[in-house]
Amino acid sequence: MPDGEYERILEQNERFVEAFDRSALTAAPLTGMAILTCMDARIDVEDALGLRVGDAHIIRNAGGLASEDAIRSLVVSQQLLGTREIAVIAHTKCGLHGADEAALRQRIEDSTGTATEMGFGAFQDLDAMVREQVEILATEPALLDVPIHGLVYEVETGRLRKVD
Amino acid sequence: MPDGEYERILEQNERFVEAFDRSALTAAPLTGMAILTCMDARIDVEDALGLRVGDAHIIRNAGGLASEDAIRSLVVSQQLLGTREIAVIAHTKCGLHGADEAALRQRIEDSTGTATEMGFGAFQDLDAMVREQVEILATEPALLDVPIHGLVYEVETGRLRKVD
Repeated sequence: MPDGEYERILEQNERFVEAFDRSALTAAPLTGMAILTCMDARIDVEDALGLRVGDAHIIRNAGGLASEDAIRSLVVSQQLLGTREIAVIAHTKCGLHGADEAALRQRIEDSTGTATEMGFGAFQDLDAMVREQVEILATEPALLDVPIHGLVYEVETGRLRKVD
Repeated sequence: MPDGEYERILEQNERFVEAFDRSALTAAPLTGMAILTCMDARIDVEDALGLRVGDAHIIRNAGGLASEDAIRSLVVSQQLLGTREIAVIAHTKCGLHGADEAALRQRIEDSTGTATEMGFGAFQDLDAMVREQVEILATEPALLDVPIHGLVYEVETGRLRKVD
């Protein structure tokens, strides 16, 4: 890890504050959208989707999975802040695509000294994985009946591709 | 919800693809950092922290909680993609700050017809909440012993404030 990244972030933030537009952003996303996608460093969600600050809730985890915690977040998004549409965006070259869960558990044990039964959400088929996440959300009883879109972001080209 | 937001996103992405720089971004974050923060629409993480595409993993959920799913993501981030530093960033005016969980469960039941026992991560004290998330990560046995920073992002000013 490069030294001083944390301090650099704090310095960068000072510049950000100087230029900060104190216009009254509201908590409720302007587009009414909630985006669920991967934590991957190569995805700048706002840039790739043409979103501005204030436009959408952005939920991110390893893979962009419709996990219990993502569902908690989407419920809060809908009930407290009024979003009424969901986009699930997985991506090419995801670290979980074809990952070996047993090998990953072994690596954790080797590096931390702790054995674990943790699951990681590894998957074999990208489009099938997207359809599965959409299905999980579509059948989640605590979520409202709203449009849910499945997409793949191609890190090679920047393109969003619909998964039907 | 404004009509056509999904279609607008797809159109915006077409422009993004035209300007896309196909430089070979690697999956491993260049700064070695993983950021855990809230899904809030008012936080543009890259802009506020001076991060570029490829720099950091960004994990987001309602509140920026060190949930089981956030830990799963951080383990993947460390073990598969080599991050070695974590920043937890909560923010002012969070929807979960002072939220009434019982009222939220009632609202879900009223709008979906489904009773739920779901917990949402509502909190009363912002700084205490940040310290608690840092503590959860610092004591999680499946995570490596790495620096973990607690911060508050002030949506009123754009400023990051350290929580010691």
